[in-house]
Amino acid sequence: MTPRAAVQTYLKELQERISSTFASLDGGVFQHDDWQHHSGGGGQSRVLQNGAVLEKCGVNFSAVDGIMPEKMANRMQAKSGTTFFATGVSVVLHPRNPFVPIVHCNFRYFELLEDGYCTDSWFGGGADLTPCYPFLEDTKHFHQTFKNALEPFGTQYYPQFKQQCDQYFYLPHRQETRGIGGIFFDHLRQNHDHYFALLQATGNAFLDAYIPILEKRKDMVYTEHNRYWQEVRRGRYAEFNLAFDRGTQFGLETNGRIESILMSLPPVTRWLYNYQPEANSAEAAALEFFQARDWLKD
Amino acid sequence: MTPRAAVQTYLKELQERISSTFASLDGGVFQHDDWQHHSGGGGQSRVLQNGAVLEKCGVNFSAVDGIMPEKMANRMQAKSGTTFFATGVSVVLHPRNPFVPIVHCNFRYFELLEDGYCTDSWFGGGADLTPCYPFLEDTKHFHQTFKNALEPFGTQYYPQFKQQCDQYFYLPHRQETRGIGGIFFDHLRQNHDHYFALLQATGNAFLDAYIPILEKRKDMVYTEHNRYWQEVRRGRYAEFNLAFDRGTQFGLETNGRIESILMSLPPVTRWLYNYQPEANSAEAAALEFFQARDWLKD
Repeated sequence: MTPRAAVQTYLKELQERISSTFASLDGGVFQHDDWQHHSGGGGQSRVLQNGAVLEKCGVNFSAVDGIMPEKMANRMQAKSGTTFFATGVSVVLHPRNPFVPIVHCNFRYFELLEDGYCTDSWFGGGADLTPCYPFLEDTKHFHQTFKNALEPFGTQYYPQFKQQCDQYFYLPHRQETRGIGGIFFDHLRQNHDHYFALLQATGNAFLDAYIPILEKRKDMVYTEHNRYWQEVRRGRYAEFNLAFDRGTQFGLETNGRIESILMSLPPVTRWLYNYQPEANSAEAAALEFFQARDWLKD
Repeated sequence: MTPRAAVQTYLKELQERISSTFASLDGGVFQHDDWQHHSGGGGQSRVLQNGAVLEKCGVNFSAVDGIMPEKMANRMQAKSGTTFFATGVSVVLHPRNPFVPIVHCNFRYFELLEDGYCTDSWFGGGADLTPCYPFLEDTKHFHQTFKNALEPFGTQYYPQFKQQCDQYFYLPHRQETRGIGGIFFDHLRQNHDHYFALLQATGNAFLDAYIPILEKRKDMVYTEHNRYWQEVRRGRYAEFNLAFDRGTQFGLETNGRIESILMSLPPVTRWLYNYQPEANSAEAAALEFFQARDWLKD
């Protein structure tokens, strides 16, 4: 099996594992949509909408190749005519219950090829949590799970990936973090086997990091007021994905399948002018909580 | 009065005229927020939310100056250290009733200055309509009103501005127009008096173009289903404003007052995966309608 094929096989398995776990938790069924990319390759989107637990959830796999669009080639300083191969799994879950955090993960592998020969390749990925009502114990659990998964590869990775996540999921115009972070890595190159193992370790840790939180929060009683706040916070999520996210930009620039790219957008979103939570409310406390810091320090 | 002061005076009057007309139609009250810009100048945002007719409406004035941010200077090929002055009125109205179209207009004036001397100046502006359920007679009325307003200045303007509007309010990733267009102009320079008069003529035409449509549609009976479709269409509006709109980009790049910039975002928005209206439904007909064409041809 070529390196590329091995990665692809792993990512497909991961898609299956995540979507089947989510489906059995929800009781609903994911809709499977196969699609072809105009330049080569394609993917399968799996989406469950309007479920009992999952209000909207996408678990998408893609493996696309073709000649690099000019804009991307310029940014990557690649020769004109360079071809690319990109495969990844992307998960976004917008839960119905406002006490269950939104979760996102993405695990991906890139190759650049000149005259059919791979001249560069790298791994990227990560997972992050966006609660509306944050809980410190959930935050610690999420971060600890990925820290444990990364530790066998070197103690430098978790602090570095944690910091990169805080930097990436930042809304500069709001001076807000998107949520409580997680891990984010990109351009892991040269040591293919090491980084492929690392990718698998973090991919495998995803359900361990998230499912206990989902289980613990999904039946919490909530009010219309909690729901309202959830819709407001989802607005921030949409702002980030549409105005800043590189994954979304990549999808739009390569003319990807638009419904798969934008499955990340929240089901119902509310934008209010100058909305401020009441002083000393749970919502005001949530805003205080969303500061990037070392969650695993006591 | 300097040219700059005359434009500013006109735009402030226009803000007052539009917001007071909207307020009396709605029965509600606009909240007025004065703000200062970090680099110089400031503005007044007027917003009415949750009204009987206006679900969310902003009528904003600003007059900002300062040293050009580097990104903008590069784009405009301006010398480093160039200062700018920008004044404008921006209106976005998200009506409650799904049969009333969303309306947007913007009228603006720019100056570039080197060592305190104005080296370049230009006008820009336009108005456009985004119905959820389009009506041909409303579309014709909106376009005809601006055509009439522009005719005294030259017959070339309406067809040109109409085409520019179709080009500007286009969602490339959806291959959809945002609505039924209107007029859009920018970089009208060199003949200050002529273009200032043109700006005023189109600014003055705005209420004539929109109010009769609002009056005619605001009490139409609508269902939950109509409302649902409205929320879906508002998603397109948010996609455009966050991912493509140059005004939003300008605001974010110059670190403008974020609540004034993003007042354009819809109050409640729905993103569904792969949503397609039923065949032969009013919603399917709406999608058919949104093709850029010559609305004033019989």
